[in-house]
Amino acid sequence: MRLVVIGGVAAGLSAAARARRLDAEMEIVVLEKGETISLGACGLPYFIEGQVQRLSQLVAYTPQQFSKERNIAVRTQAEVVTISHPRREVTLRNGEKLHYDKLVIATGARAPRSENPRVCALHTLHDAERLKSLLQSQRPKTAAVIGGGYIGIEAAEALRAQGVNVTIYQASSFLLGRADAALTDAVAKQLRKFRIRLEMNTTVTPEVLKEDLIVLAAGVKPNTTLAQEAGIELGRSGAIRANDRMETNINGVYAAGDCAETTNLITGRATYVPLGTTANKMGRVAGANAAGARERFAGIVGTSILRACGLGVAMTGLCESDAKAEGFEPVSVLIHGRDKAGYFRSRPTTVSLVGDRRTRRVIGGFVLGDDGVAGRINVIATAITNKMKVDEFEMLDLAYTPPYAPVWDPVLIAAQQLVKAL
Amino acid sequence: MRLVVIGGVAAGLSAAARARRLDAEMEIVVLEKGETISLGACGLPYFIEGQVQRLSQLVAYTPQQFSKERNIAVRTQAEVVTISHPRREVTLRNGEKLHYDKLVIATGARAPRSENPRVCALHTLHDAERLKSLLQSQRPKTAAVIGGGYIGIEAAEALRAQGVNVTIYQASSFLLGRADAALTDAVAKQLRKFRIRLEMNTTVTPEVLKEDLIVLAAGVKPNTTLAQEAGIELGRSGAIRANDRMETNINGVYAAGDCAETTNLITGRATYVPLGTTANKMGRVAGANAAGARERFAGIVGTSILRACGLGVAMTGLCESDAKAEGFEPVSVLIHGRDKAGYFRSRPTTVSLVGDRRTRRVIGGFVLGDDGVAGRINVIATAITNKMKVDEFEMLDLAYTPPYAPVWDPVLIAAQQLVKAL
Repeated sequence: MRLVVIGGVAAGLSAAARARRLDAEMEIVVLEKGETISLGACGLPYFIEGQVQRLSQLVAYTPQQFSKERNIAVRTQAEVVTISHPRREVTLRNGEKLHYDKLVIATGARAPRSENPRVCALHTLHDAERLKSLLQSQRPKTAAVIGGGYIGIEAAEALRAQGVNVTIYQASSFLLGRADAALTDAVAKQLRKFRIRLEMNTTVTPEVLKEDLIVLAAGVKPNTTLAQEAGIELGRSGAIRANDRMETNINGVYAAGDCAETTNLITGRATYVPLGTTANKMGRVAGANAAGARERFAGIVGTSILRACGLGVAMTGLCESDAKAEGFEPVSVLIHGRDKAGYFRSRPTTVSLVGDRRTRRVIGGFVLGDDGVAGRINVIATAITNKMKVDEFEMLDLAYTPPYAPVWDPVLIAAQQLVKAL
Repeated sequence: MRLVVIGGVAAGLSAAARARRLDAEMEIVVLEKGETISLGACGLPYFIEGQVQRLSQLVAYTPQQFSKERNIAVRTQAEVVTISHPRREVTLRNGEKLHYDKLVIATGARAPRSENPRVCALHTLHDAERLKSLLQSQRPKTAAVIGGGYIGIEAAEALRAQGVNVTIYQASSFLLGRADAALTDAVAKQLRKFRIRLEMNTTVTPEVLKEDLIVLAAGVKPNTTLAQEAGIELGRSGAIRANDRMETNINGVYAAGDCAETTNLITGRATYVPLGTTANKMGRVAGANAAGARERFAGIVGTSILRACGLGVAMTGLCESDAKAEGFEPVSVLIHGRDKAGYFRSRPTTVSLVGDRRTRRVIGGFVLGDDGVAGRINVIATAITNKMKVDEFEMLDLAYTPPYAPVWDPVLIAAQQLVKAL
């Protein structure tokens, strides 16, 4: 019995490792087209910024470790060019054919690129190396970042930290892919405080831009060609469709990570949200099922977080306008609180919550502030996952002690306001 | 229509303020036996330690503010000595009688005290003033703290910060009122690192102790005499019994805060956990219902947190041994993780989770670490409140970005271990 995994980053390696834990005997082969595996791509902006000194800090495992510690064969520079499911066979770029009994497709996503020497992406290890060396050799004074999503904002912050004058060009009127004016305003204000310029509602191509350096940070797309050519169905998001066992329309063939779509637990509809932590969970479930277990990945609520020029920005669930489009009757509130007792150098924290008037459920929210942002958005995400009503939410038994939290946590204050507003 | 509230701290003031928000007309009188209202008693150890400079920083409101901003009459040094419900009347220490239509009893709790000049409590503003002035005038070299609960540990830390050699005497083999050996060991290790001595399984009275200063930090009891004498029933915990509307056995008479018991949402049984944040919630609900609304406070899961010599220590739900005593089939796991990406100066974080084998529900846990401790215990508390199975818990869509969280959050790693162990 041989499991072949295509892709050696988050989802692929999670799948392989989990399959091995459940089945000590199975042969497991991971095929990675690049030179390294296990890249923590979320760390790339911090390499540009300087917090990460060496790119090797972003690589969690080597193929040797996987082979030695887990008896998993990991082959790099092993690009799969076709899948022939009738023969249960993949073909590599070099013509080699490899039989599989079970297959996990974890081909990830790709970012737009350009041949223009002024233009960089920030998606792979090579991108980061190239961008860093461009910064050192060309000493650009100005940079354009195309895209105001989290990669764009993190890239802008990193370039700004290197002394570059940065402009972010964003095609829509919203940042971070969320049609939330309050969130966009708060993030824009923070970016401007660090003298990052924002050109909203501006669609540009590298050709028209005058900046010394251009970073492409929009338009990440799932790598689906291989799967499509093998007759594997895509979903309405354009990514590979898989059921909650991460199995595609072809029996025994699984898809996980940034090449696959998942379910939004609030709307019940397919969604494409390529994030490392989701990729890991999908990969684990794909690997478990490929190894004969029965596990499921029900979906996500859409939690994400970034640091924008020192401001923690976290969001989950639906914003008001998305909720409306999905047929909810959303009501949102926004409060400003403090993250701990005043005499412990408390910092401002903003919490927004979205509730649905019909069901009184909490369906979304965002949190802005300092270190406590992750914990607070996670409480909201847990409440949403459990379909909690705001009336129950406001009574949550959350931790209080002056050095760590205020007596009324900002998320509970927001919930009290939402109870009134609904 | 007059609402009388007995007690001007967390629960009493929350009740009064909430009643006013729902009913602009009602007459509202708060009777407080002490000289100040609205004391944040949780901050008292930080006054001893020095983080809080003036006790006034711990007082959120003055009677004048309540009168001016909310049209609520707050009378200090107004001790109620009897409640005569047949006459709907309370009698003050000075003989004055006051009619009520609705009554909220928020008489709080009391700590043991002693006439011995070496002995202090740390429960009231006067206690803190006296302890601070004893420290300054007597310059004690050694101190004994009787009680290894959170007040005892915070008091010990505060005294240690003042250069005093401190010994904590704890009657049982456990700290923090939780029969959890792993938790006790971790906290004891941290205290010893700061050279605080621990005498476990040691029942002492102030008389036998040789230390220069003795702090009584055990045996807080609900103030129920007034209620009992008025025919109000107590629960099995010894505190006032109230239903989920915070109403006592007497119609129109409510109890809230540290004088009242509540329900443990995991066991469904009455419990006595006097904490400020619960007191506020109970008070709000009592006030709302006294003002004619219909709100409920279902209960707590038992979340608490403290800082023990710089270590964040948070717990929620049941520990394994309590769970066993309550008829569960508990299984617990403990993992050591990191609170963020390694290259962002991550700190160690320990997470323990308790699950019930029969239902696979998460029923308890603790978290040790740095700033992220509050957020992580709150996620566990939210999961417990929602009766989440650990199989769902491990798939929670929690926030990830290198500056704030690791790709596998320690609570999810613990959940994965618990899935295996159950």
